[in-house]
This record gives sequence, C-alpha cells and structure tokens, in this order.
Amino acid sequence: MTNSPHDTDRRTRALALLERLEAGAPARVTANLDAFDVDAAELILGFSFADVVGRDGIDIRTREMLTVAMLGAKGTAPGQLDFHIRAAMNCGVSRQEIVEIIYQIAVYAGVPAAMNAIASARKAFEALETSS
Amino acid sequence: MTNSPHDTDRRTRALALLERLEAGAPARVTANLDAFDVDAAELILGFSFADVVGRDGIDIRTREMLTVAMLGAKGTAPGQLDFHIRAAMNCGVSRQEIVEIIYQIAVYAGVPAAMNAIASARKAFEALETSS
Amino acid sequence: MTNSPHDTDRRTRALALLERLEAGAPARVTANLDAFDVDAAELILGFSFADVVGRDGIDIRTREMLTVAMLGAKGTAPGQLDFHIRAAMNCGVSRQEIVEIIYQIAVYAGVPAAMNAIASARKAFEALETSS
Amino acid sequence: MTNSPHDTDRRTRALALLERLEAGAPARVTANLDAFDVDAAELILGFSFADVVGRDGIDIRTREMLTVAMLGAKGTAPGQLDFHIRAAMNCGVSRQEIVEIIYQIAVYAGVPAAMNAIASARKAFEALETSS
Amino acid sequence: MTNSPHDTDRRTRALALLERLEAGAPARVTANLDAFDVDAAELILGFSFADVVGRDGIDIRTREMLTVAMLGAKGTAPGQLDFHIRAAMNCGVSRQEIVEIIYQIAVYAGVPAAMNAIASARKAFEALETSS
Amino acid sequence: MTNSPHDTDRRTRALALLERLEAGAPARVTANLDAFDVDAAELILGFSFADVVGRDGIDIRTREMLTVAMLGAKGTAPGQLDFHIRAAMNCGVSRQEIVEIIYQIAVYAGVPAAMNAIASARKAFEALETSS
Repeated sequence: MTNSPHDTDRRTRALALLERLEAGAPARVTANLDAFDVDAAELILGFSFADVVGRDGIDIRTREMLTVAMLGAKGTAPGQLDFHIRAAMNCGVSRQEIVEIIYQIAVYAGVPAAMNAIASARKAFEALETSS
Repeated sequence: MTNSPHDTDRRTRALALLERLEAGAPARVTANLDAFDVDAAELILGFSFADVVGRDGIDIRTREMLTVAMLGAKGTAPGQLDFHIRAAMNCGVSRQEIVEIIYQIAVYAGVPAAMNAIASARKAFEALETSS
Repeated sequence: MTNSPHDTDRRTRALALLERLEAGAPARVTANLDAFDVDAAELILGFSFADVVGRDGIDIRTREMLTVAMLGAKGTAPGQLDFHIRAAMNCGVSRQEIVEIIYQIAVYAGVPAAMNAIASARKAFEALETSS
Repeated sequence: MTNSPHDTDRRTRALALLERLEAGAPARVTANLDAFDVDAAELILGFSFADVVGRDGIDIRTREMLTVAMLGAKGTAPGQLDFHIRAAMNCGVSRQEIVEIIYQIAVYAGVPAAMNAIASARKAFEALETSS
Repeated sequence: MTNSPHDTDRRTRALALLERLEAGAPARVTANLDAFDVDAAELILGFSFADVVGRDGIDIRTREMLTVAMLGAKGTAPGQLDFHIRAAMNCGVSRQEIVEIIYQIAVYAGVPAAMNAIASARKAFEALETSS
Repeated sequence: MTNSPHDTDRRTRALALLERLEAGAPARVTANLDAFDVDAAELILGFSFADVVGRDGIDIRTREMLTVAMLGAKGTAPGQLDFHIRAAMNCGVSRQEIVEIIYQIAVYAGVPAAMNAIASARKAFEALETSS
C-alpha cells in the first residue's frame, strides 16, 4: 500500500474552503504542513475540509460556530481557537454571537475554558477591526 | 452571606426552557437536583438556562447544536449527550444535521469521540421515532 | 534491571491508608490488581498512597476533598469518583461539604461535570445512610 | 459538492484492516455505522484505517500499542479501549506488553486512567483466554 | 427576555471576594471582561464568586486549594492556575501545601500535569517572595 | 511517617535513564525540581523513570513512541511533548515514525491535537538537525 494517494482534487477543494475561512490561509498552512511531511496537507486538510467541513447539510457559518464551541470547550488548541474565531467572523458570525458561544462554553466546559476563549476572542476582535 | 438567595423567577425561567428542550424534563431533573441539595436546581439550572442558554443572540435551535458539539467533543458526559441530542431534535434540528455535527466532532476531537456520539445519536433517533 | 522491587513496607503502608478510606477496600482492590499483574499493587497503590497521599503536610480529610474535586473536574473515572466520595465522607467530610465541592466543580469544569458528580454523590449518600 | 464520494476501494481497504484487528469486526461495525448514516463507514473507517492506520512506516502491532496508550490516556472511550486491547493482542502484542503500557499510562495520565485501563485489560484477557 | 439583569449587588459581592484573592485583581479582571461584553463580569464573576465560591460551607482557604487541584489536574488554563496558586497563598495556603497538592495532582492526573503545575508554582513562589 | 524516604538508588536509576533520553537533561530537570521541593526529583522522576519507564518488557524506543502518542493525544503539556519528541528521536525513532504517530493522533484525538504535535515536531526536527 502506498502512502501517497495524491488526490489532487481533494487538496484543491480543501484549500478553496480554507481560503474562504481566512484570505491567505492556504499558503501559510500548506507551507507549515509541507515542511512537516509531503502527505500532511492532503491527509489533514483533505479530511477536515474536503471530506467533512465542506459537506452539505450545515452551512459554513454554523459549522464555524460549532468549531469555535468545540475548540473552546476542549481548551487544548489555543492557536486554532484564535484562527477559528476569526474564520467564524469571516463567514458572517457576529461579534455578539461569539460572545454568546463563549457564555455557553462557560456552562458546558467551565469558567476557565470561557476565560481562555475570551482572550482568543479579544485578539480576534482587534485583528478584524484593524484589518477593516 | 446566606446560601439560599431563592430567586423564584430565575428558577421558573430555567424550567420553562428545560420543558421546551424535552417535555417532562423539569420534573425529572428537579427531583434529582432537589434530592441532592436545596439550592442545586436554582444554582445549576439557573446559571445554565436562565442566565446563559435562555439569552437572546443565538436561537435555541443553534444553541442546542453547539451543546451537542461541545458534549460530543469532550466525551465525558454521555448521559447529557443523549439528552441534548434529543433536545436538539425537539428544537427542530434534523437527523441529518446531527449526523453532520458528529462528522465534525470526528475532525475536531477524534474518531473515538465521534463513535461515542454515534451511539448516543442512534439511541436518540430510536427514542424519537418510537415516540412520534 | 528487575521489574519486581517488592518493597513490602511500601505495600503495607499503602494498604493501611486504603483501609482507612473504606473498610474492606484493600482486599477488593488488591484482588483486582493482583489478577492483573504481580507488580500492580505495589506500583500503583505504593505511588498513590504510600508515596503521596500518605505524606504529611495535608491531612487525609482535606486530601480526599482534593481528590473528589480533581476526579469530578476531569470526569473520566466515574467508578473512582464514587469510591472517593465515600472515602471522603469516611474521613469526616460532611454531606454539605461534598455539595459545595460539586458546585465548585460546576464553576471550574462546567455543569455536565457537576451533574455527573451529583449522580456519584447521590449513590454515595445512599450507600452511607444504608450502612449507618 | 456531493456528500457521497463512495470511494469503494477506500472502504474495502479499511474493512480488510479492521478484519485483521478482530475477526468479524467489519460486519458489526459497518452495521452500526450504516444504520447511522450512509457515508459513515467510508468517512470514519476510511480516514482511520485506509488513510492512516493502514499506512506504511509503522507496523500494525506497534500502531495498536500506540492506540491503546492514547485511548487509555484520554479515558473517554472505554468501549473502544476494550476493542483495541483485544485488537493489539490479536496483532501479537503480549499480555505483559499491555501491562507495561498501562503502567506508562499511570505516569503520563494518572492513576485513575490506569485503573480504567486495567478494567478494560482484564476483560480483554478473559475474552481472549476463553476464545483460545 | 432581556440579556442584562444587572444585579449590582451580585457584581459587588463577586468583586469583594476577588479582591481578597489578590489585591488589585478586580480592576484588572473587570477591565478585561468589560472590554469583551457588558454582561461578562456579572455573568462569569457573579456565578463563580458570588453564587459559588463565596458560599458558606467551605472556607475560602480550602476552596482555593480545591481550585488549584482542579486547574492543575485539567491542565488547560495555565494563566488561571498561576493566578489561583497566588490566590491560595494569599488566603493562607502555605508553600508546602501547594507542594503537596501538586504531588497529589501527579497521582490523579499524571506527571505532565504536575510538571506544568510546578512551573506555575515556581512563578507564584517567586512573585510572592518578591512582593513581600 | 516521614516525607523524605531518600532512596538514593531510585534517584540514580531515574537520572541515568533521563540522560539517555537527552544528554544534559538530568542537570536541568533536577535544578527545576530541587528548586520546587526537596522530594520532587525522587518522587516524580523516581516513579516515572525508575519505577515505570525503566522497566523491562518494552524497549525504550517503543516506550518513547507511546509517550509521544499519549502527550500528543492529551494536548495539555506542550513543553513535555517537545522534550519527548526529541527524546524519542534520541532513542532511535525516525523522523518518518514521528510523522506516522502524529497522523495516528489525528485519528484518535482529532486534527487540532495533531496540528499542535506538528508544531512540536517541527521544532524538534530543527533542533536535532542543528545539533547534528
């Protein structure tokens, strides 16, 4: 069994979705993944974005809300939480909706998880205000 | 400082929302909490439902999707995941949307978390088909 | 390097503390661990109880409160949470103190963790009332 | 974008690996996943087994040791831990190696995680002795 | 249903407790929370400190020990662990008691969690020695 | 019961293994632990390395693979993950094997855990290339 199926179309679809989450993200993320391993971009982005997040059935705006909620509740990937709060807002999620998700994180994962998410959100709010 | 603020209105609002999540839930949940401690229902349901989940800003249908995502991603409260999948569907979330949330859990929290959520979802699907 | 240091004194001290946590526990726990591996009781109970929990510096009553808080906050070992709520009460922790710890779990680990701990506590309260 | 790529080969390869992990598992697992959603088997088993665990670079015996370590350390999927301890042993991991992995779980994830894994291991040891 | 109950007394009681945990903390924490959302201070600090941690039944010194244990065991909020080790010591918890709690974290959550807590504790020890 | 068993041999064996994981690590790690508490090095390193990781039954190379998998899957100790990826490679684990472990982390703990591990791995790859 070879380790490199190289399904070009899957990678292309994943990167198109990633570009929609944040302009310029595909170049940065693939540079990171390609420097790690030749199969990483397809395996990881392909599964995440082409196979799952790009599916029909839930719109991307709601999907990003779900991702923010999950990353905030788990609290183990602060860099990705920063990214997905910005991505959610790039998909049309409002600042007030981010606030509401974080209050809900306090209920389902505790106040420290919410405090971490507040730090991420404040950075994202500032980054998006500066860029607009 | 007394431990029993007894804000009757807060309890009432929390139970009204809980009834909307699943008909009959308030009696069952308050029986459990009241047997534990006299302040439990107000403190826990009051914070969860009156203070946070009952807020404006995100509709209850989307909020239950977020809760399913968080409980599935954390994987530490299977009984509550069972409940909130049923609650989400009682609020209008479709079976296909539950499926999509669980695929997204696989991406952000791993396949074992998704497999646990599939077991919860299958029980919920069956319970709701039987009752309808 | 041999895998069997067999520090008899360490095992004896660990079991003496375990007996104080719940009368009869040493026989049950060592039966389980000995059936798993010959070194398990010394390695696991020795580290837990002889090396750490049996140390001076914090009394056993407070230590069991800390253990209940940690197990409740993590939410991944329900059987051990059941045991340590009973053990805490056997060391003099009151029912009301268990209640307070669980409310504090709600703050620092979220409401679902607290709900799981309430289920454990209600079983422990019942077991201890029946036995007294 | 359609939700059903139906890459038959990917499903076939995944099920072949699953059969190697435990004889008869493919029928049971696909029955569960197919009852949940038409795409579940390919998405979840395809990613897990065809895309990742079936890759070259680490042999299946070592991979199953890694899976047991991860599931034991996380402690949130007891049913899957049961399965993968059996699967590891079906791939040639010895009973003593399972014991060693669980001691290492105690170091890196704490004693309660190890105690849960001991319960899983004892069930697996019994199941495999009975079947042999 | 309005989102701004503005229970002034609840906020006041929460901040009084926070001031006791660390002199000057209320100004810093409310500045952070107010910049995030107008309701954050009351919802989050009100639940944490006025509703729960400020309750009778367990003294604040023991409560801070419980908080350090929970945050250390979870390992997902290093900034809050830093704060609560200082807060515990401000409430009379001794350096040796912090050491004992961290050894107990090693048992119930593993050595890496204890190593993270040691890093937090060393910073807190230094900060408090410098300030005294 | 005294808190200072001072089993010199146990400390010596632990440090010998630590030196094998990374040349120079014993001095750095014991400086950190000794500054925290006089018993820390023996309790924590003794349990980790003399009692468990130094045992027969699984070779150190495979044990370090297991540790990388567990730390990556839990995602709560990034500094220790950095260290153990370097340690694994110092024990003969290849760069490609680290890559494979991280893909397996994506399956069993989710993509964000894998992304964090990729950041750790890239730092380790660079550090080891520079030093060689």
